[in-house]
Order: sequence, then structure tokens, then C-alpha cells
Amino acid sequence: MKIAIAQMNSTIGAFAQNRQKIISLSTKAEALGADLVLFPELALCGYPPMDILDQKSFTEMNLQSIHILQKELPQNIAVGIGFVNKSPYQGGKSLVNAYAVLQQGKIVHEQIKTLLPTYDVFDEARNFEPGQSWNLLELSVVSTGSTTDCCSVVEPVETTVRIGFAICEDFWRETDIPGTHYKSDPVRALLDAGADIICVPSASPFYSGKDATRRALAEKIANRGNIPIVYINAVGANDSIIFDGRSFVMQPDGKVSVVAKGFEEDLITWDNTLRVSAPPREIPQYDIIENALVLGIREYMQKCGFTHCHLGLSGGIDSALVAYLAVQAVGKDNVACFSMPSRFSSDGSKDDAAELAVNLGCRYETLPIEPGFKAFLETLKPVFEDRPFDIAEENLQARIRGTLMMAYSNKFNSMLLATGNKSELAMGYCTLYGDMCGSLAPIGDLFKTEVFGLCKRINQRAGDEGRKPPIPQAIIDKPPSAELRPNQKDQDSLPPYDTLDAVLRLYLFDNLSAKEIVETCANDKCSYEHMNICALDEALVQSIIKTTARAEFKRRQAPPVLKVSPRAFGMGRRMPIARAVFEI
Amino acid sequence: MKIAIAQMNSTIGAFAQNRQKIISLSTKAEALGADLVLFPELALCGYPPMDILDQKSFTEMNLQSIHILQKELPQNIAVGIGFVNKSPYQGGKSLVNAYAVLQQGKIVHEQIKTLLPTYDVFDEARNFEPGQSWNLLELSVVSTGSTTDCCSVVEPVETTVRIGFAICEDFWRETDIPGTHYKSDPVRALLDAGADIICVPSASPFYSGKDATRRALAEKIANRGNIPIVYINAVGANDSIIFDGRSFVMQPDGKVSVVAKGFEEDLITWDNTLRVSAPPREIPQYDIIENALVLGIREYMQKCGFTHCHLGLSGGIDSALVAYLAVQAVGKDNVACFSMPSRFSSDGSKDDAAELAVNLGCRYETLPIEPGFKAFLETLKPVFEDRPFDIAEENLQARIRGTLMMAYSNKFNSMLLATGNKSELAMGYCTLYGDMCGSLAPIGDLFKTEVFGLCKRINQRAGDEGRKPPIPQAIIDKPPSAELRPNQKDQDSLPPYDTLDAVLRLYLFDNLSAKEIVETCANDKCSYEHMNICALDEALVQSIIKTTARAEFKRRQAPPVLKVSPRAFGMGRRMPIARAVFEI
Repeated sequence: MKIAIAQMNSTIGAFAQNRQKIISLSTKAEALGADLVLFPELALCGYPPMDILDQKSFTEMNLQSIHILQKELPQNIAVGIGFVNKSPYQGGKSLVNAYAVLQQGKIVHEQIKTLLPTYDVFDEARNFEPGQSWNLLELSVVSTGSTTDCCSVVEPVETTVRIGFAICEDFWRETDIPGTHYKSDPVRALLDAGADIICVPSASPFYSGKDATRRALAEKIANRGNIPIVYINAVGANDSIIFDGRSFVMQPDGKVSVVAKGFEEDLITWDNTLRVSAPPREIPQYDIIENALVLGIREYMQKCGFTHCHLGLSGGIDSALVAYLAVQAVGKDNVACFSMPSRFSSDGSKDDAAELAVNLGCRYETLPIEPGFKAFLETLKPVFEDRPFDIAEENLQARIRGTLMMAYSNKFNSMLLATGNKSELAMGYCTLYGDMCGSLAPIGDLFKTEVFGLCKRINQRAGDEGRKPPIPQAIIDKPPSAELRPNQKDQDSLPPYDTLDAVLRLYLFDNLSAKEIVETCANDKCSYEHMNICALDEALVQSIIKTTARAEFKRRQAPPVLKVSPRAFGMGRRMPIARAVFEI
Repeated sequence: MKIAIAQMNSTIGAFAQNRQKIISLSTKAEALGADLVLFPELALCGYPPMDILDQKSFTEMNLQSIHILQKELPQNIAVGIGFVNKSPYQGGKSLVNAYAVLQQGKIVHEQIKTLLPTYDVFDEARNFEPGQSWNLLELSVVSTGSTTDCCSVVEPVETTVRIGFAICEDFWRETDIPGTHYKSDPVRALLDAGADIICVPSASPFYSGKDATRRALAEKIANRGNIPIVYINAVGANDSIIFDGRSFVMQPDGKVSVVAKGFEEDLITWDNTLRVSAPPREIPQYDIIENALVLGIREYMQKCGFTHCHLGLSGGIDSALVAYLAVQAVGKDNVACFSMPSRFSSDGSKDDAAELAVNLGCRYETLPIEPGFKAFLETLKPVFEDRPFDIAEENLQARIRGTLMMAYSNKFNSMLLATGNKSELAMGYCTLYGDMCGSLAPIGDLFKTEVFGLCKRINQRAGDEGRKPPIPQAIIDKPPSAELRPNQKDQDSLPPYDTLDAVLRLYLFDNLSAKEIVETCANDKCSYEHMNICALDEALVQSIIKTTARAEFKRRQAPPVLKVSPRAFGMGRRMPIARAVFEI
């Protein structure tokens, strides 16, 4: 039989548009001779619908859409679609995360998701009741005689293939999810029921390294059940969550047969009677992160209705990277960059920013903040009196810039991009309502060391391809500075970034205490790359953790960050603001 | 026997401080002759701990605290404490929301919470595994001979009282929680086990009318089981959630025996051998809301370490109310008010703001925004060219004000209060990084009509008590205006507030679609007070709903609002930003 994977990009609540895509991709799959085409989890309504699920009209439109699809889908192919159904169970939540297979106008199969992720960005126990049973789809397929033996004539034979559906988390039971160990074992249940193929319709959010994790998991299960795995992932992005696609079919031997594109819609087919292998492709991790971020920016703008975006270029590496990514996402003609020099801006910074804009080919304007700064100082004088220059005046500059950028946004309906990175957001080394202004923080989930790493990789690839490296070397080489007071350097206020980022990884990803972090590093047990921190001072680690905790109030008002790590700031990490920073 | 209710205010993560309070209140309860003192749900670590629970060190400190309490608690009283325990079950989440009774250094009883709320502001399925069984605490108590009959001598008798613990949500199964119908029935199980008393340790967030709901529920259960109910609520606030206290004991006949104070810590006792009734007190709903908001402001400031706060006074009703509440919360000497007039500010507004500040007795300064405004317009001229004055210039004024207020915040370590109301937040009729600046939005969960209602009530009460009404009548009487362009009035851009708020209630609280809202009002089925909207235009309702959906990006960056309604913006209402506003 031939199975098609429709790696679709859904928009939350865009039922007419999502239906149209489902019909169009199903028609194409039918034309390719597929017996079955499979769409991702909740492809009909988009993922994650969150609390729109409280609105009955939303669920009803989604069910009406299933009825419409029953009538309008092509007739010679079975179609698997993720949707929201009413719970068939007594008690519990009133909805389920369901997957239906439609064939010739009928729903011939339904599987309800049994494991509901309720950690990180996931909130599924909030809205859904878990499924309680597993059944197989029995699909009669007529073998069309396609064999590897070209010379023999094979009569068409009707066979029955039994397919089990493990919806996203149902497949992830084996992995180590901190704090969660599921009781039931959906894949085991499907295997016990006699599945010939396990299909995994997913809306699996991207983070760096996720693809390898997925494949390792699939290999384990393929081996365990001696069974092929068809992994159907969503693609696109919704707010801070990026779906990377990269759907695949894995043979029982752990070899990958077919792979869909990363970070774009795709339709691929797989014939279970053929043994083909997709050649393994090693793509550098930073290239994958770049693709994810570019997709995340493009999608957010498109789904929010923006064609243009803009940002402040400080001459530093963060804004340089965001400008570069924005140009990749929506094209140089749709990105405007603003230099907003102050009395503390170095000539080097202004020159570097200008050079970057030239390299990127996008609009570049200068809006000096000195007149605004003077006006504010004058206005505040009766209240500030003769108090010394401090963080108030530093932040003032950042907020004047934020205000200028928002004025441009309002006047020209252009979306402002925030340029902060994860190390800054952790330490609160950023100005709320200043450089934190923006609709989206594209690199808010990249540590500063990763910002450097990605910029170097971007330049290196350009060099390898004979292009001029887009990011001026001076931007990469100079010590980071906010330039909000004379001769300010980040390292005056923060630990060295390699130390800081190492500590933050262990704190944010592994939830370790200061003591545990020091021990982990001393015993060389740390599993993160690029960490050569053997001797950490516990007081320093404590101060990093406390500073991070105290900056929660800023992060609560930060724009959504594009998630590229296992734990990003935002919906995936929910912390109280008012609390004691406990004795760690 | 005598039971004490220790209505305690915990701080999240402040283990030493929380322990000290537990010891001190237990000692007092012992001195009052109580056999048992009961603390609220998770009193030891504070509620809601959210994702700090991912940090093993947090759970461990909480368990160590239990060990310390075993040693340090007074010996002649049993003490019930809510804490986080490790899950005793195979699989599932690794923690449980537990309640232990400590007596003479031993844990003599433990109940695990069985129903985990996972809706609105609650996220308990994220961190906890539900309990699977119910046991009773069997407490031997020596009757001290206190009867109503003063003349007979009664010998002390040892009796055993069987107490069942229904932890917060375990008690709420009977109520109508949209989308959730629990399968198990904890109260039934406790009654079947033969409980003599049901105790309900809670961290039950306030909303307007919650007390009546709690009592109606208690009455139902008291009647059902012919059993007294001891309801122990937390008090205080954490971020946007306010705990109102108002713990009570209800007799089997539905009469309330004793009631703890609202909105402050309290220790009360109840003797199960005595039949006393607390006289019912009717407190006007707006007074209760005022108490809640005052507590919310005070707590947030205190737990975040602020002694001073400030805000911009526009001369409008919203900032007037916030200023009044702030003065109630932290005293007039700790509140600074700023008038920040623009070229569009009316003399009336400036006068009204000044008069209010005089009435409140707090500091009042004027910071004109005209110099800043001119500087920005000049700076932006090369980019704006000769485009007409529009929302860019309107928002610019609000952002200059926000920047001035944040400069003051940074210079003097004073907390800025945002002054927006719920109707504005719904419609996006507010400026992100402008009037939305602030650490807390005290009235962000009050509809505009409620803002008027509360202000009128505040003035009325002052009048009744022979004090000068604090809010100048002109502020209440004049039509609301943002004064960001000549002769601007809210009602030029928004529907009349009574219509708007009525629609928003049905949309936000009941999750109705435009069609359903029109039908509900036409059929006079609407259950909300003050709603006299019979004929609604469906197109208008649709436009309100769509505008609310489109303003999600602003709300995502809003400060926490103090929750006083069944559904507040913020953590309790999670909506995607990038989505189609679906065909409603």
C-alpha cells in the first residue's frame, strides 16, 4: 500500500482555509496513487488551540468541518485528520484530542489521544479527556503490482493492513519527561492488538536536537515491534512554538525510508512494499536553528497580518542577528533598520550597524535620541533634582528607543522585533518597555554564546558559498555593550557569558540548585557541549539563580520568544513573581 | 473537641518564614485550648508554587520543613498542614498536593488531594498526581466538660472524632465547572468512611460572589451528610490571585457557627459540642471588591519588596480609583501621583486630578509631556514626513508618560501601578508600553461599569460615615476620554460601556458566540445584573468579539491583573495570538 504524509501548516481557527488545504493535499495524494493520506495532530483546527476550546462555537465549527470534509474529500483515498471531538466518556473533560480516518464519506476509524502532555508549553489536561482504548484501522488495499522485479507480471491482490495510531505524546512514553512517567503504554497496546504499521500524527514543537530524539525513539519502537513507523509532523509556527516538519517513515530495521522537508509544507509518499532508504543528511545544528527562527518570524508576521517589520540596530551582535533573520524571513524590502545613537554610542557601533544594513540591503535610517533624552532630563529635573546618573537614565535611553520604534510601528503598520537574547532575559539585563518592546522576540531563546555561534556559522557558510559574510566581523569581535553609560561593558555587570550560559543551562533545563550545579561541574558530569567550567564559585551560581528569579516580572511582560530549546521562557516556564527567592 | 482555624498568609518559597508562622499560630491555638489546628492548603510552601515545583531543591526544602516542624511544633495540639509530598504511586507525576496532621512529633495522618483543578488559573495536573484513596483521621480528644449546662459537673471523657479532609477542589465536585465533570466523589467517600467532620483546607482564590458560592456548597454537603464542615481558607495574595480568607465552620443544619476575618490573617476556634451561630453580615459587594483589591496591591508590593508606589493621574476615573486603592493599601505617604498633561488635556482634567490628590493627601507632581512630545515629533519628522496625526501620535503621548513613570520607578525604587480596566484591556483601548506600563494592574479585572460602581460606592460610604467623598464628583460625571487628540471621547471609538460590558461578560465568562449572545439577550436569559440589553445588533457583537481577539498581543504583555471575577485576563485565560478570528 502507499501512504502519503501531508505535512501541513494549519492556522488556529482558520477552518475554511485548513479544510481547503486538506482537500487539496488529499487530491494530490490521490493523484500520486496513495491509499491513505495522513495529516498531523489537530490539523483541522490548528495546534495549540488553548482556551479557545472553551468556546463551544469553536468545537462546533471544527465538527462541521469534518462533515464538510466527508462530502468534499476525494473518494479514492482514505484520509486521516486530527480534530477536536466531544468526549464519549462519562465524566472528566468534555472534549478529546481525536484522529479520524475518513473514507468515501464515512468515518471509518477514530483514535483518541491517550497521553495528554501537561508540562512545558503543553496544557492538554486543561482541555481534553484522555482516550481509554486503542483500536486498529483495518484498511483493505489492492496491491497494484509494483514490485522491484520489473519482469514478472503480478496480479492485483487485495490485502488488509492493520494500522495503529499513536497520537504525538502517545508515542513519547519512553522518553524521560521530568516529573512525568505515564502509566499506560499506547504503543505496546497497539502492538499487542496486532498493528502492521504504527502511524504517529503529531504537532511536535521544535527544539534544537529534537529531530534526533524523535528518530531515536522511533528506532527503539520500530525495533521493539519489528514494525514500520510513519511519523507525520505539523509544520509552521504558532506564536512561540515552531513546528519543524521533517516527517519520516522508519523501517523496522531503523533505517529511514522517506523524509519530508524541514520547515516547509510537503507531501511525500511511502510504499510499504518497497525497501528504500533516504540518504542520511548531516545538517549543522546552527543551520537548523536558523531555519527554525526564520520560519518562526515569517509565520508570526503572516498569521498576525503583517507584511513589514523593523528593529533598532545598535551595532551589537543581537540586533545584527535579528536583522539578518528578518531579512531571510520576509525579504530585504520588507525590513527597516533604525540606528538610534545616543551620547554614549561609539562611532564603531554606528559604522557597524550601517555596514550590516548595507550587507543585508535593507532600509537604514538614523533617529538620534539625544533631543528626546534632553527633553526627558529637563522634564524630570524638578523630581530627580541633582541625583547622580544611574539606571534611571540608562533605561530612559532604551525606552526612548522603544517609543520611537513603536511610533514607527503605529504609523506604518510595521511589526517591531525585539532583539534580546536568553542570557539577558534570564538576568533581567534588558529594559522593560525599552529594548524589550516588540511583538516577537526571535532570539529570546538563544543564549548569548549561541548568538555568537549562530552569527559565526552564518558568516562561515556565506564564505563557503563564495558570498560576502553578511555580519561585519567587528560586530562579532567587539565586547558586548549596552552603551547606556560611558565605557559600559556587559561583563562589568554580568559573569563571563560562557560561565553564565553554562550555569543557566543547568538551572533552566535541569532545574538544579546552586549546590547541584557546582557539584555537577566539579565532577565533570555536565552533559552540555561547550562547557569547560570545572570550578564554579557557589556564591556566584547562587547570585545568578537569584537574579534570574528576581527578573521574573520583566519576563512576564516580554513578547513571545521563539522556542528553540527544551525550555524557553514564556508559557513553558511558569513562575510566580511575588515570592521568596528560597534558600538554595 | 475544639478545632482552631489558622487562616494564614504564606509566601511562596519562604520556608523559614512560613514555618515560623505555623509554629506561632499553633502555639496560640494550643493556648486557646484547641485539640487540632488546621492550616490552609499548601500553607508550608505557598500557593500556587507553579513550576518552581520542577526544582527538586524546592520540594526538598518543603519536606525538610515538615521534619523541622515535627520537632518544633507545640506538643499538646495536633496540627494540619498543607505541603508538597513525593508521590507514593507508580507512574504519573512525581509529586502530590498533600495534607499532613502532625501530633507529638509524628505524622499521624496524611490525605492526598484527589481532584486537581486544571482550568482558569489552576494548573495542578501539571505538577501533581491525584490521590487515589480517602482515609479518616481518628483523633482522641478529652472532653473538658464544657457544656451549656453550667450547674452540672461533667467528668472528662475521652472520645474519638473521625475527621475527613477534602482538600480544596475535592470539595468542589458538585459545582458547575465548565468543561469538567469529575468522576470520583471525595466527599461521598469520606462520608461513607464514617467521617464525623469534614475539613476543607483550601487556597481558594477570590472572585466577586465566591463566598456565597462556597457557603451554598458547604450547606449542600452539610445537609447531605448531616455533618459539620470546617472550611480553612488561605489569605493574602500571590501575583494576580487574591485569597480572601473568610474561613468558616458550618453546622449540619447549614448555619454558620464561626467565621474568620476577610482579607487578613486570623485564628478562630470552634467547639463541636457547642451550638453557636455567627450572625449573618451583609456586606455590599463593592466593599468586598475594594477589600480584595487593597489586599492585592499591598501584598504584591510587600512580597516584591516595595514600600512606595506611584501612578499617573489623568483626571479620569480609572486612575482616580487606582490612586484611592493604593492609598488604602500602603498609606498616603507612600503613594505619589503624577499629572502629565499634554496639549490635549483639558483644564477640567488637571483640576480634577489635583483635587483628588488633595482629598487623598498624597504627593502630587506635574510633569508636562509637551517638551518630550515635541522632541519626538521633531526626531520622527524625516520618517513620518507630512503624514496626518493618527494613532502613532496618540500612542506617543501615552508612551512618553509611561517612560516618565518608569524613570521615576528606577530612580526611587517605587512601583508603578497601571490604571487600565477590563473593558479597555478587552478592546485593546490602551497603549502597550504607555498606560499599560506597571508592575501590577489593580483594576484590570473590573469592567468600566464596575469602575463607576465602585467609585460611587466609595463616595457614598464616605458620605454615610460623614467623611468627604474622596473622588471628586466631576471625575465620575464627565464622559470618559483618553484626551490624546482634540475632543476625543471613549464613546467615539467604543460602544456604550453598558452594552460593551454586557457583551464582554457573556463572551468572557460564558464563552458565548455572537449569535448566542444576541439570542440570550433577546430571550432575557441573561443572568448578569445591570443588563438591560434586549436588542443587540449581531454585527456589533461580532465586532466586539473580533476586536477582543485581536488585542490578545497587548494583553500578553500586560502586567498581572488582580483577579476579582470568575475569569480574568492573564494566566486564567490562555489564548493564541496568531490565529484566525474564526467565523463566529
